[in-house]
Amino acid sequence: MRNDLILQQRVRRLREKLKRESYDAIFISNFYNIFYLTGFKTLTTDEREAFVLVTSSNVYLFTDARCLSAPQSSFELRLIEPHHGVLQHLEEIIKKEKIEKLGFEGEDLKYFEYQRLTMTAKNTSLHPLPHLLVKEREIKDASEIKKIERACDVTGQCLNDMVKIIREGITEKEIAFKTELWLKSNGYDLAFYPIVAVDSNSAIPHYDTRSGNGIVAKSSLILIDFGAKFEDYLSDITRVFFVGEPTKEQRFAYQTLLAAQEKTVELISKNKDPKTIDTACRNMITEANLPDYSHSTGHGVGLEIHEYPKISFNSQDSVLEQQVFTIEPGIYLPGKFGLRIEDTVAIEKGQAKILTKFPKTMQIF
Amino acid sequence: MRNDLILQQRVRRLREKLKRESYDAIFISNFYNIFYLTGFKTLTTDEREAFVLVTSSNVYLFTDARCLSAPQSSFELRLIEPHHGVLQHLEEIIKKEKIEKLGFEGEDLKYFEYQRLTMTAKNTSLHPLPHLLVKEREIKDASEIKKIERACDVTGQCLNDMVKIIREGITEKEIAFKTELWLKSNGYDLAFYPIVAVDSNSAIPHYDTRSGNGIVAKSSLILIDFGAKFEDYLSDITRVFFVGEPTKEQRFAYQTLLAAQEKTVELISKNKDPKTIDTACRNMITEANLPDYSHSTGHGVGLEIHEYPKISFNSQDSVLEQQVFTIEPGIYLPGKFGLRIEDTVAIEKGQAKILTKFPKTMQIF
Repeated sequence: MRNDLILQQRVRRLREKLKRESYDAIFISNFYNIFYLTGFKTLTTDEREAFVLVTSSNVYLFTDARCLSAPQSSFELRLIEPHHGVLQHLEEIIKKEKIEKLGFEGEDLKYFEYQRLTMTAKNTSLHPLPHLLVKEREIKDASEIKKIERACDVTGQCLNDMVKIIREGITEKEIAFKTELWLKSNGYDLAFYPIVAVDSNSAIPHYDTRSGNGIVAKSSLILIDFGAKFEDYLSDITRVFFVGEPTKEQRFAYQTLLAAQEKTVELISKNKDPKTIDTACRNMITEANLPDYSHSTGHGVGLEIHEYPKISFNSQDSVLEQQVFTIEPGIYLPGKFGLRIEDTVAIEKGQAKILTKFPKTMQIF
Repeated sequence: MRNDLILQQRVRRLREKLKRESYDAIFISNFYNIFYLTGFKTLTTDEREAFVLVTSSNVYLFTDARCLSAPQSSFELRLIEPHHGVLQHLEEIIKKEKIEKLGFEGEDLKYFEYQRLTMTAKNTSLHPLPHLLVKEREIKDASEIKKIERACDVTGQCLNDMVKIIREGITEKEIAFKTELWLKSNGYDLAFYPIVAVDSNSAIPHYDTRSGNGIVAKSSLILIDFGAKFEDYLSDITRVFFVGEPTKEQRFAYQTLLAAQEKTVELISKNKDPKTIDTACRNMITEANLPDYSHSTGHGVGLEIHEYPKISFNSQDSVLEQQVFTIEPGIYLPGKFGLRIEDTVAIEKGQAKILTKFPKTMQIF
């Protein structure tokens, strides 16, 4: 489908949702939601260079002259100028379109932004709409899944080349840099800064490779957690590699983890409740007398690296057709080592299809 | 000075400010402010992996087990666990330390976070404290200025090498990639994704190089706006290069802009009001019958690329000793070309000392 038709469809779906709860309009501040709805992207994700207002008849885009490289689209442009900011524009539109009930993104709007909105929209009732667009983004269309699939394929190709450089003496930072370089040289981007963690560093799930100093020894375990970006869509994968013979403890933990990860992916075809999936995965690990992990079993992936659904003990989501999410249990033995095996999967005909195809059998060099 | 003493000093200064307005504590959510105050850094800047509470007697750090690679410091760690989140910890501390008046960062806390805070701190009065820590960060200490100086030096070295590759046929993307590669290969990082804009693309101040397709022609103008990161501190520089003979119009605009930029830097020694500085700079350009620019004349630089002071028509700041900021007027002729000349300067003994030393005379290849 043509991209402008996809955008129109998204706007239509949003309007239906708004209508159902008799909202006249929604004010959108989140960078990714703006892009999802209008195709418009600003230079930074966090500097508030654009806002969007969707009413029953118009899609207004507020931005300033610095950002106007975008081709004209189907939205109404309102230029933010020194003496005519987004709030003045809003005030005019509220009056013109008689907006009485206005929604905003409660998980995104800052306290001061909310305050200013309140002062501008004095005769309008303001309501935080929780996770409205991020819940829409949870279900991917065919073109989105295609992009994520490509981003996943790429991780396998990249790991194939990384495997060749993992040897005694190489630093975590160098592996991370080579991974980044591989992706960028091939026209992709990083989904996030890679976690490359050697030996005891791998026991820290969110290990910061940039601040660390790990080096691969003669006998080492190397955890690599990274993802690629292709046309704005991301992938996420974690694999563990061994240089030299793994210890018995490492072998047992790895086999337990791999079995748990694979069985959890299979379980999805039978059970669509993230809470049950999360618990089942943890139980397979703790039943082997190995420690439970401190993070969730998985998370949605799309324009952002952490989206819906959440695969966790307190998830309020359901597993649905055309979702894309990770399954990534881990086993962490502080001071010793950590393991995590992570795939990105897509839900197709009720089954979890693995998109990250790099082998999960023990890789020993 | 030792880093832990610097951190203690920052906490002390913050407490004095709080005491002056009889606050019992402040809840800090901003990634950079947390780092500035505690030295603690999480993997992402925007995923709320940590919060900090500064009371009259303690500095509490709330984070979860995923992030614990940091060495123990002088703060009280409160582990965020599945059934014991930051709000439960807060509730306990509020009770224990009898916190009655609690500040938070109004420009950073999200609406829903604020709501949850309200429900947790039921008997505590909550107040948004505007720009408390970012205003502290405006004045740099000697060690911070040293890091920014190094980040500035590096941009010059990098540009010296980039100049060698700017020739007919090279794409904007390739110049951006080589810039990134140069910095990362030499142990630095990007301060932000470079703006490399050729010919008419340069007329868009926030041109998105990643989405563009510009190529250097036989006769071209190339604008490069980038910065380096060294030990968490940033620099910011813009230079314009010419391949082939510039047009008369380009020469005139460039000379006008250069004179305006240089005179504005000089003006700072005599005038410490950002509003006056901003206006003076614009006037020099419009008096030559060239168009005014749509962005501010400058902005502070430090841990973030846009900090205080703002050098703009509506700035509420003053130019003060040990600030670091940019001076970056531009001339934009839509559809034709754009120019911007940007330096990072530090205020030393009342003078603006230029830290980005790469030449500003017309560079023609």
